[in-house]
Amino acid sequence: MTTNQLISEIKKKKSFLCIGLDVDLKKIPQHLLKSKDPIFEFNKAIIDATHHLCVAYKPNTAFYEAYGLKGWKALEKTIKYLNKNHPDIFTIADAKRGDIGNTSTMYAKAFFEDLAFDSVTVAPYMGKDSVEPFLAFKDKHTIMLALTSNAGAFDFQTKTVDGTELYKKVIETSKTWENSENLMYVVGATKAEYLADIRKIIPDSFLLVPGVGAQGGSLQEVCKYGMNDKIGLLINSSRGIIYASSNEDFAQAAALKAKELQKQMQSIFPTE
Amino acid sequence: MTTNQLISEIKKKKSFLCIGLDVDLKKIPQHLLKSKDPIFEFNKAIIDATHHLCVAYKPNTAFYEAYGLKGWKALEKTIKYLNKNHPDIFTIADAKRGDIGNTSTMYAKAFFEDLAFDSVTVAPYMGKDSVEPFLAFKDKHTIMLALTSNAGAFDFQTKTVDGTELYKKVIETSKTWENSENLMYVVGATKAEYLADIRKIIPDSFLLVPGVGAQGGSLQEVCKYGMNDKIGLLINSSRGIIYASSNEDFAQAAALKAKELQKQMQSIFPTE
Repeated sequence: MTTNQLISEIKKKKSFLCIGLDVDLKKIPQHLLKSKDPIFEFNKAIIDATHHLCVAYKPNTAFYEAYGLKGWKALEKTIKYLNKNHPDIFTIADAKRGDIGNTSTMYAKAFFEDLAFDSVTVAPYMGKDSVEPFLAFKDKHTIMLALTSNAGAFDFQTKTVDGTELYKKVIETSKTWENSENLMYVVGATKAEYLADIRKIIPDSFLLVPGVGAQGGSLQEVCKYGMNDKIGLLINSSRGIIYASSNEDFAQAAALKAKELQKQMQSIFPTE
Repeated sequence: MTTNQLISEIKKKKSFLCIGLDVDLKKIPQHLLKSKDPIFEFNKAIIDATHHLCVAYKPNTAFYEAYGLKGWKALEKTIKYLNKNHPDIFTIADAKRGDIGNTSTMYAKAFFEDLAFDSVTVAPYMGKDSVEPFLAFKDKHTIMLALTSNAGAFDFQTKTVDGTELYKKVIETSKTWENSENLMYVVGATKAEYLADIRKIIPDSFLLVPGVGAQGGSLQEVCKYGMNDKIGLLINSSRGIIYASSNEDFAQAAALKAKELQKQMQSIFPTE
C-alpha cells in the first residue's frame, strides 16, 4: 500500500485508529476456546465488527509465537483474511525485528512477501545496515522504534548522545538512509510533549503512537503536538478495544470502544 | 541448562564453538530439496556430523520465518531433535526480540517454554522492562546485544552517552536489573580490542561472539582479550561451517571446518 492510499483511507473514514490484535487465550471469551482456531476466530470477529472504524490492524507477533505453530498459523490466517476482505486497510506486523544485513532481508521477506503485511516494526540498535534491507521493498513501510511508551524508554532512548537525545539521533540518522521515505516511527503517547520536537525533525513522516488509553496517553495531546497536514498519525489501541468485554458480546463491545475513539478523532479532524 | 553445565561441557570437549544454523534453501545442497523437510534434514545432518565438536547451536529465527509455517515447523523439529538427542548442548534462539513488559513475557514463553531453547538473544533499545521478563526464567539465559559485528554498530552503539560509549552504558545498566546473573552479551569479533574494556565491566559473564571467519574476526585476538578463567566465550560460526560444501558431502565438509576451529580452540585452551 502506498502512503497516499493510507492517507485517503484516513480521510474517508475520518479515523486514524489502529487496532492492536494481541490475542491472549487467557483473556478472550471462554466460549471461543471450543472452536478449532480460537485465535483466528477472535480476530475475525473483532475485524468484522470494527473494520469501518479503523484504518489499520497491528498483530503483535509475540502473542502468536507464544502459541507455537498454531499461533503462527493463526497469524497467517489473520493477515490473509485482512488482505482478501479489507485490502484498503493498512496492516502492521509488530515484530520489532532487526539483524545484520542478509538476516534482515530474510525478516523482510517473512513479513512483506510470505505474510504480505504492508509494514513491520523494527529496532534501531544495530544501525543502518540492519534497517535498509527492509526499506528496499517498494510500497512497504518500515516502522522504526524511536521513543517507546514504557518506563525502560528512559534507560537509553532519552540519554544524551552528541548533544541530543538518543531517540532524536536515531530519527535524524535514519533520514540519511537509502529509501528513508519508506520509514515511519514508533513514538509513545505517554510523552506527548516530545512530539513537538520530533515533528521538527520529521514533519512529514507517519508516526505510530501506542499507549493511548491503557498506558495513559491522551489523544488530544498527541494530536496537538503530533498531527501534520496529512494527519500523519496512526493511534494504536489494543487491550482497551479487544478486551472491552469477555462475554459473547465482545465484538460489539470492541466496536463501541472503537467507535468512541473514532468519534474523538473525527472531532479533532481538520476541516478541509 | 545452568551456566555450570555449559562450562563443564566446554571443558569436556575443549571447545567453545557455537554453530549457527542459518538455513537458506538457495544455499543448501540441491539434492536435499527433494526431501519432505529440506531445512530440518539439512540441520539434522549438520548436527549429526558436528555435535561432538561444538557446545552450542544457534538457529537464527529470520531464516525460518522467511519460509512461513514450514520454516517455523522446521525450527520446532530442530530444537526438539537437539533437546532429545543432545541435551548437554546449549541452544540459542537468535531472535533479537524485545518489547514492552507483558509482550516480552510472551516472547520468553515462545522461546523458553514452547520451543524450549536454553537461551534467546534480545535487543536493549527499550530498556529494563523489555529485558527483565526474559531474566525471570530460571536456568534460562538472555543474551543481550551489546556491540554487534556489522558496520551499523558505529551508528549508535559506539556513540558517547554520559561520558561512555552506548554499548558500555547498556552493559553497565543491565548489571542492575533483576536476575542479571542470567544475562550473557553479544559482542562482535570484528572489534576484538573492545573486549578488554568490556571485560572490565563484566569479568564473569559469557560473551557470544559472532563474526569470526566470514565477517573477518580473529579467534586468537578474541581469546586474548575476551577469555576469562571459566572461558566465558561462545564463538559462533555459521556460513563458514554449514556451507563449507554444497555437494552431497556437505555434512562431512562442515565437520572438517568445525574440527579446524575446535583444534584452534584446544590449542588456546588454558592448562588446568
